[in-house]
Amino acid sequence: MDTISKLFNIQYPIIQAGMVWCSGWKLARAVSDAGGLGIIGAGSMNPELLKEHIQKFKNNSTRPFAVNLPLFYADIDKQVQTIIDLKVPIVFTSAGSPAKYTKLFKEHGLKVVHVVSSVKFALKSQDAGVDAIVAEGFEAGGHNGREETTTFCLIPAVAEAVSIPVIAAGGIACGKTMFAACALGAKGVQIGSRFAISEESSAHQLFKEKMTHIYEGDTELILKQLTPVRVVKNELYDELKKAELNAASQDELKAILGKGKSKRGIFEGDIEHGELEIGQVAMRIREILPAATILHNIWEEYTSMKQNLSLNFP
Amino acid sequence: MDTISKLFNIQYPIIQAGMVWCSGWKLARAVSDAGGLGIIGAGSMNPELLKEHIQKFKNNSTRPFAVNLPLFYADIDKQVQTIIDLKVPIVFTSAGSPAKYTKLFKEHGLKVVHVVSSVKFALKSQDAGVDAIVAEGFEAGGHNGREETTTFCLIPAVAEAVSIPVIAAGGIACGKTMFAACALGAKGVQIGSRFAISEESSAHQLFKEKMTHIYEGDTELILKQLTPVRVVKNELYDELKKAELNAASQDELKAILGKGKSKRGIFEGDIEHGELEIGQVAMRIREILPAATILHNIWEEYTSMKQNLSLNFP
Repeated sequence: MDTISKLFNIQYPIIQAGMVWCSGWKLARAVSDAGGLGIIGAGSMNPELLKEHIQKFKNNSTRPFAVNLPLFYADIDKQVQTIIDLKVPIVFTSAGSPAKYTKLFKEHGLKVVHVVSSVKFALKSQDAGVDAIVAEGFEAGGHNGREETTTFCLIPAVAEAVSIPVIAAGGIACGKTMFAACALGAKGVQIGSRFAISEESSAHQLFKEKMTHIYEGDTELILKQLTPVRVVKNELYDELKKAELNAASQDELKAILGKGKSKRGIFEGDIEHGELEIGQVAMRIREILPAATILHNIWEEYTSMKQNLSLNFP
Repeated sequence: MDTISKLFNIQYPIIQAGMVWCSGWKLARAVSDAGGLGIIGAGSMNPELLKEHIQKFKNNSTRPFAVNLPLFYADIDKQVQTIIDLKVPIVFTSAGSPAKYTKLFKEHGLKVVHVVSSVKFALKSQDAGVDAIVAEGFEAGGHNGREETTTFCLIPAVAEAVSIPVIAAGGIACGKTMFAACALGAKGVQIGSRFAISEESSAHQLFKEKMTHIYEGDTELILKQLTPVRVVKNELYDELKKAELNAASQDELKAILGKGKSKRGIFEGDIEHGELEIGQVAMRIREILPAATILHNIWEEYTSMKQNLSLNFP
């Protein structure tokens, strides 16, 4: 059994990313039931809602699952307690210091994974005692690192720097990208966009349909003076970009961004005025499919490449 | 024999990128003599100097080689004629329309490859009748596309869109990155940064030494309002970046950039005031090596991965 499947007690080393407004208990259950690791994204949930999603997952599946917990939220301590109280087996932390909660989670028997976008934070995560690292490249959707290091440069650098397993994220949506990520040194993959555009994703149908019509150059990492985020180009993007090019202050940018724009775009389906977070790889996604089909297609293409390597490679 | 090696009559499907101020006849000869495809970069040569480099290559090697020809130069017609007159066997065109010279070159028996950073231009190149395409990701050094599509997203998209062979570029510097590129659908690789930092590169020794001390986040794609270019962060970068953040006009940016800054940085070794073009992958390069050693290390790691796949992959 491979390292990642063993670590999480799953069948395939394929992890569905925790994503705001996409990954509730339904998507997580679909992925976990299909043999991958489903993740409930706490980033768009208050502690009560998170509790409800964890309980619903547990009432509907006996498989391992995880919660993705961005560490910068106001109610972070309540969310940490909810995760511990409800005996969630695995937690993926992100957007903060891995030193803060790793020890506490480990004392309660959880497996801990931290999401990073640099070698520097991969080493910090390893020092903090995490079980594995997700290394996420520049091409990934949503919030991202300031170094802009792509999956192709980041994964080998991180895999060569740490001794714990590395899970690759950013640009992965099919068997061949999974295979390439493993060639770069990853022991498993975390997939966001492909599962955001699945039947079980809680994103609005209009968001999902729009995402099947994304072409090259249609997303961009913007707001680098605030917190870098990869979004689809729409009316909100145009406003933000125009302000950036006119040297708008951080406060002016915050005013344009306002509150709740990712909910408006992803969950409520306001395609022009919401913040549409998705990865570059959406340019290669043309169908809304069941999560189990997505997972099995990826695994089948991946294993087929492993078995038929000599036919395709120079 | 693999597709690319057959096309160019070489031993390994490894191509050294044509790079301003790095790739004269010495580097091209070292790579071609080692069994790869060496390229003389015409981008930093007037027609007379290009003629001299082609003749010196031919006087010192009988192997196939190519000239990389950016199509936006003033003296482009003279360069085209020089390449034809001196019976260069292969030309890599870039930074312009593939429709303009492909037919002429083909009529004179040359193999033609066009460098692109998008699916759109890959298809245009195929329509123009080129023999192969180089698809170059966002992480590559020097001039780059506006879409910012990374190698991980670009290569599979291009390989799925065209029927001619695709050569991957951007982020490739070792056997595992070559292997990953082939997993994504490439039939060969074009490698810039790793050969820019070789003994035979005509870059200044101070440039090469600086490039072995590049870390994550030390390069950035800037000047997106002019022509996007990936450079190392130094004093010139600071000036340009400050101007960009203050909404400088195109003319103001051009004035700061001035003339001859890439020569000053790469060829003359002015590390702080020159334009230092290099790829993100420089963060993984720590030694100045002979080009033949670089090529053989890459091929050895690549073939070893092919043979021992089951040991390393999930």
